[in-house]
Parts: sequence; structure tokens; C-alpha cells
Amino acid sequence: MKNIESLLEKFKPSWEEQEKYGHIAARILHDLFRICEEKGIDADPILVGSFAKDTNLRGGDLDIFVRFSKKYTAREMEKLGLELGRAVVSDPQAKYAEHPYISGYQDGVKVDVVPCFRIDKSSEMVSSVDRTPLHTRYVNSHLSEEQKDEVRRLKLLLKSLGIYGSEIYRNGFSGYVCELLIDRYGTYRELISNFAEMRGRLVIPKGALHSGKFTSPFVLMDPCDDNRNAAASVSLESFSKLKMAAKLISSGVESIIFNGTEARNASDILKRHTAFRIFRIPHPGLVPDTVYPQAVKFREVIVSILHDGGFIPVSSAIDITEDIDVMVECERAVVPRVVRHQGPSVDMPNSIDFLMKWRGKKVMRGPYIQGDRLYVEIERECTVLEDCVMRSIGSYDIGKNLNLFREQLKILDPVQDMALLETKVVDTFVNEIFPRMEKIVGIEHLSAREDL
Amino acid sequence: MKNIESLLEKFKPSWEEQEKYGHIAARILHDLFRICEEKGIDADPILVGSFAKDTNLRGGDLDIFVRFSKKYTAREMEKLGLELGRAVVSDPQAKYAEHPYISGYQDGVKVDVVPCFRIDKSSEMVSSVDRTPLHTRYVNSHLSEEQKDEVRRLKLLLKSLGIYGSEIYRNGFSGYVCELLIDRYGTYRELISNFAEMRGRLVIPKGALHSGKFTSPFVLMDPCDDNRNAAASVSLESFSKLKMAAKLISSGVESIIFNGTEARNASDILKRHTAFRIFRIPHPGLVPDTVYPQAVKFREVIVSILHDGGFIPVSSAIDITEDIDVMVECERAVVPRVVRHQGPSVDMPNSIDFLMKWRGKKVMRGPYIQGDRLYVEIERECTVLEDCVMRSIGSYDIGKNLNLFREQLKILDPVQDMALLETKVVDTFVNEIFPRMEKIVGIEHLSAREDL
Repeated sequence: MKNIESLLEKFKPSWEEQEKYGHIAARILHDLFRICEEKGIDADPILVGSFAKDTNLRGGDLDIFVRFSKKYTAREMEKLGLELGRAVVSDPQAKYAEHPYISGYQDGVKVDVVPCFRIDKSSEMVSSVDRTPLHTRYVNSHLSEEQKDEVRRLKLLLKSLGIYGSEIYRNGFSGYVCELLIDRYGTYRELISNFAEMRGRLVIPKGALHSGKFTSPFVLMDPCDDNRNAAASVSLESFSKLKMAAKLISSGVESIIFNGTEARNASDILKRHTAFRIFRIPHPGLVPDTVYPQAVKFREVIVSILHDGGFIPVSSAIDITEDIDVMVECERAVVPRVVRHQGPSVDMPNSIDFLMKWRGKKVMRGPYIQGDRLYVEIERECTVLEDCVMRSIGSYDIGKNLNLFREQLKILDPVQDMALLETKVVDTFVNEIFPRMEKIVGIEHLSAREDL
Repeated sequence: MKNIESLLEKFKPSWEEQEKYGHIAARILHDLFRICEEKGIDADPILVGSFAKDTNLRGGDLDIFVRFSKKYTAREMEKLGLELGRAVVSDPQAKYAEHPYISGYQDGVKVDVVPCFRIDKSSEMVSSVDRTPLHTRYVNSHLSEEQKDEVRRLKLLLKSLGIYGSEIYRNGFSGYVCELLIDRYGTYRELISNFAEMRGRLVIPKGALHSGKFTSPFVLMDPCDDNRNAAASVSLESFSKLKMAAKLISSGVESIIFNGTEARNASDILKRHTAFRIFRIPHPGLVPDTVYPQAVKFREVIVSILHDGGFIPVSSAIDITEDIDVMVECERAVVPRVVRHQGPSVDMPNSIDFLMKWRGKKVMRGPYIQGDRLYVEIERECTVLEDCVMRSIGSYDIGKNLNLFREQLKILDPVQDMALLETKVVDTFVNEIFPRMEKIVGIEHLSAREDL
């Protein structure tokens, strides 16, 4: 039986690994210092991220930032930063997040070299990467040696729950949020017993609500930035999963969390007797950070059209590989011609407006009174799922880039065309995105995901 | 264009009619007096009902009660009462409501002769008919001559709305309620302006709620009986219809009420693309007052089974002729195999019980968390409407008499078998029981319904 201690034993990096990482980091930092000096670049490299804070898990990567003087323009800094990165790692690849950086390898370890501006407080910040070194400094000056392993325990729990990581599609807890939570509660155990008893929102510190600026279920002020909720990426669902897990652990049944069940088979969807459709549009060929939020919007629009059309969508999944696929499961693919529309109570002054509005209109029945409310039954324009989506999609905004592809929308039925069951989005549907406590990710998957 | 004044002109009885009714009543009362005297029966006849109160509409019937001394047993009184009734009308027929009475004709006018006990206040009452003469006395001593026509206006409005009558299946306003309402508001016009502005419950007098005994939306204390809500038969829906009508009248668009649209055709249901079924059980051959409440229960049970089964019932109708027919319209006749079951919020202490209860059970998916709630998806036992009802009906109570016929339930589909479109319940569905402001009964129908 796995538990949090067995996980820590397995996934805390060995001394050998830490030493190896230390050597690699020292070599790269040294090289960067040297090149800056040689070329007269006013910049200094700094080790950041979980290795720098000693809260890393086995097989993680190294994050090295190069802090430039603010005398450079953003463009100059980026150009110099990419040159520096290319000079110090093998297989350098330029990547583009909020601004460009270099990702490469050294002795089998993934290393990111990220240029940023050198600042002392968040108010001087140009882009969010500038703040990262402040986070490293904060954690190192606030957490004790013992607390580093408490952070690792929390990270391992969150990975087991599938809610670790601040990437936009994960809606999870970042490493920094884990560190701030241990800073707040002292230990993993204490955090668990607090979450097990928690009801409703969590706001740290309490005063953070005074401005009324933060409305999410979990607000954790960034001690390095008064204007930032460090936990903004944590969704209600992820927050709720941690609460539920804490209840299980406090009740002595934590084995449920750490011993996941088997993966499901795509053909399982056939047993549900529901209507599945894959909504596919071409990938615009842009980076995930640009595409993902638009894909989410695409999903929301599809689900909302299906809901309004009466098809009763029950669940959905997104997959972004060659195309952008949204799979939606509905209770039905054909709806009755008639739809009942609820009006006001007869007690309301506008009840007469409702009556007059619908009188004489082409209705299927009504307006009539049932209980104390007015109703009218009208005719649906579309009774078939495909028609309904095809007719409506053109008038919805699904993001700047995806809007260009709305007219190329294809609607596929994986039950009619069984080859589609091999599609990644079907696997995602049965096993991944749709939240399932039952299928809490088996810990064996962890190493493959260590780069998260 | 019809309005309330044109209706009054048309349906207020002429002097000739009133005189004719007066002569008939006088003759019968005289005969009854004579027979009682001859036979030494300690009883006196009394004219009651709307004619006695001068609040009757054209073509109504006559109600003559025979008040017996309480020295008789109920059985003796009933036996003597039926004999007396048979002696004074043509075509006498014994009928049975709370107790037996004679219904017959005289010169084309329907006359009911009803035996009751002679009482002075409601506390001495044996059955509710004993109280009726008190009502007649109250109304005649409280309403002015002018107010009689105000009562007639109100009755005509309520008939136009299809909510006049205290019969159990009508859920409407009795004549006595109309008289008490005019007693309270003074005039029809004043009543309308009060109902147009009314919100929520109406309680007359205000103090009637002190006991907490009456919870219905409209409470009108019977001035002849402190323990009785005279408006108990008025449903929320009927009460709401009067409010809505009052709003229309106050806004000057009363023509909507008095000029009904054409009746709908049974085949209209075919356009709705929904699932219709007629649920038919044999008539137990008992009086309406016994059968109707059980038929209502039957309908409620069917609708509830269909609702729980996921078939989304949207409307229904009852017809009691040769058989008892309940017609229900559902959004679908086949449901998905999977059904989602909502559990508690993760914040609730019982969330862990929900999780443990479903873990390891045969579920289609879950338990999982969405938002802050737990869900599980389980397999439905029945996915076909007929199976679902047939399997369940045996375990529901549909009334003492109808329970004996549960196993003879037939489920018919008027869309598959078009001959069934001629069934009365289909007509009721499209035109009658299901409330429709649009199809407020055309006043031409009134005379055919005057015996209600």
C-alpha cells in the first residue's frame, strides 16, 4: 500500500542526484557569468525554481534566470538572453511564453535559461518572470530545512490528485503555492487537518479581501506582490479535491488517493447510451498558451449552444494535438419540437407584458398558467444536434485565432465511426480531463510527468 | 366584443324566468310542508342555493333542503328525505354525495331535494349539508340588492376563466365564495382592482392565520363556521388565474378573457415531437367524488414514476368516462443508460460517506468532483418508458379502489394508433384540463355547462 511517506521516499531526490544537479547548475552559472563579463553585458545569472529552493522532486528540471539591467530594452534583453542560453546548453531550443527563453539539456537534465529584468520589488516588474527570483528569495528565507520535505509531501499529494501545476489547462496548485501553504500551516499534517475541516472559501491572509478585488474560492496573497493572488490558477474543483483528499486522509482512508484504479477503455462510452460528438477545428499552429484559452472558449460555446438547444450536455473534454478536438456527451441528439418557456409569476407587474407579448404569436400552446407562473410553449428551430451547432456557431466568439476556423468545423460521431474511438480526445474523456476521484492518477505516471 | 356587462345582460335571468322558478319552488315547498304535516314528520323545507339568494345565472337549478329534527337518526332522516323528494318532483333519481338526495325535474327545471338536520350554528352540524341553510341566511342578511348583480358579474368572470365551481375536479370558486368576496370588497370593480395589485396569499380576515391551521394560498373564513376555509377548494392555479384576469381587466384588455380562441385539434399533438402515452385502468363503477381523488393520485404516481425514470414529463390530463385515462406527455420515451446522481458538497461532513458508499459499487463513472460537489454516474434499470412504469406501478398506492386495477394497466400510444386521437382524454389535453389563458372558454359554452 502506498502512502505519502512511501511516495516521499521514492520521489525525494537522492544525494547523488542533488549533487549532480548542483554541479550542472554551477557550471552553467559560471559560464553565464564569464560570457557576460567577456561581452560587457550588464546581467547576472541566478538559480531559481524548485531545485534552488530544495523543494524539488526526483527528475525535475533546472531553471536558470539571467537578470538584465533595466537599461536594456525588452527586445535587447530577449535577444541577448537567447544568445546566452544557446551558448550554455546542448540542443538549445527557443521557446515563447510571455517572452522568449531557451530550453536545452545538460547531462540528461532539462535546463531552461530565461532572461528577465533585475528588480528588487514587484512594483518595478516589467513581465511576470521578473518576479520569479523574488519568490526564490522569499521561500529560502522563510522555510526551514524540515519544511522543505513538507512541501515535497504536499506536491506529491497534489500530483496524485492530478491538480499539481500552474499551467493554464491544469487549474492546479503551483510549486510556489505549495511553499506558501507550508509557510502558512507549518507542516503537511497541519495543512491536512485544516483542509479537512474547512468550509467555503480560504483567504490568506484574512485581510486580503478588503479591496474586494479577489473573488475566487481560494485567495493566497503573494507576499512578494500585494496585487497578486498566487493561487489564481486554482479552480474551485481543484480546491475542492484537496479538501476531499484531506477528509479522506484525516479519516484514515488515504489509500484511496494513492492507489488509483485501472485506466478505462475508450469503448466504455458505448455502454452509456448517450450521444457523443467530436467537434473538430484545425489547429492554428500557435503556442499552447495562446491556443488553450481559445479551445476552452470553444468548448464553452459548444456546450452552451447544446444546453440552450435542449440536448442536455453532461460532460466534455478537450484535446489539442493535430486538430482542436472538443468532445461533448449529451443526453440526446434529437430534441422535441416543442419547448416550454417560463414566464414571470402572475404576481409580478410584468406578467401582463409576457401575456401580451406571446398572444397571437405563433406558439404551440399557451400562454397558460400553471401554479402561479405563466408559461408558453414554442417551437424549436432546430431539433437535430448537428443543425443546431452549425447554425449557431458563426455568431459566437471563440477567440481571435479560432474564429478564423469556425466555418471549417466538423462534427464527428465516435459511435457511428468506431475508428474515432482511437482519437486522443476520447481517451482524454474516459481517463483524464473529466474529474474522477476514482481514477486518481497512479503514482507510476509521475516520472513521465516530472517536467510539469 | 363581449365584456362583463354584455355577459350580465345575457346571463342574468329574466323576470319571467325568476317568476317561473319562484312558482315551481313555492309549489314544491308547499307540497313538502303538506306531506310533513300529514305524515307527522318533524321537518321543514327551505329554499337554498343561488336562486334563494338571488345570485343565480340563467338556466340554473333549484335547491330545496328539508331540515329534519335531530330527534331522527341519520338513517331515518335519509329514508324519509328520499321519500319526500320522490313525492314532489318528476323523474326522481336518488343520488349519493356525502349523503343521499333526490334529483328530478319540474317544468324543465332541475330540482334537487336534499334532506339535512335542522341546526342553528355550525357546531351542531352532523354533515356539511346541514350548514347550507346557514349560508343562505348569512348571504341574504348581508348583501344588498345591488350586490346580487355584483356576485353575478364575478361568477360570469370565473366561468369565463373556467374556474367557477367547487367540485373537487374543478379546483374553483364556489358560489358562496363569490358571495363572500363581494361582501368583503363591496363591488366587482373594487374586487378586480384589489386582485390586480395583489401579491402572494390572500387571507380574509387577516386574523384567520393565528391558529396556523390554514396554509393554502387563499384563505376565506366561513362566517358561519370558525373552523372552515370556505375557499379550500380554490387551487393556487385558479387563484392565480383570477389575479391575472384582474390585471388584464385593470389594464383595459379584458377582451382577451371574454373572446376565446378556437378549440384545438387532437392531431395538434403530432406536431410536438414528444412522447404521448395514455395510461388506462378500468373504472371501478363508483361515484365521481370517490373516483376523482384516486384518479388524481393515479396521475401523480404515473408522473412521478416518469420523472424519476428520466423521461421528463411535461404535461398531463385526466379523463374519467368508461375507463380512467391519464395522458402524459414526456420529452422522450427512451432514456440514456447512464444517469448522474448528485452527492453533497465536499464541504459537508457527509461527503466522505457518499464517497465510501459508492466506491467499489458498480458505477458507470465516479464518484468524482465537479465544482465543489460530488457526483456518481450509475446505470439505469429501465431505459424504456413502458418497462419503467409497468415495473414500478405495483408498489405505489393509487387509492383504495384503483389499487385493485393496477395490474390491468394498459399503456397506449395515440401517435402509433391514430384511432386513439378520438379519445376524450386527448381532447381534454389539447383543450380543457391543462390550463390555457389563450383558450379561455368561449361564453357560448356556458349554457351547456350551467348545471355545473
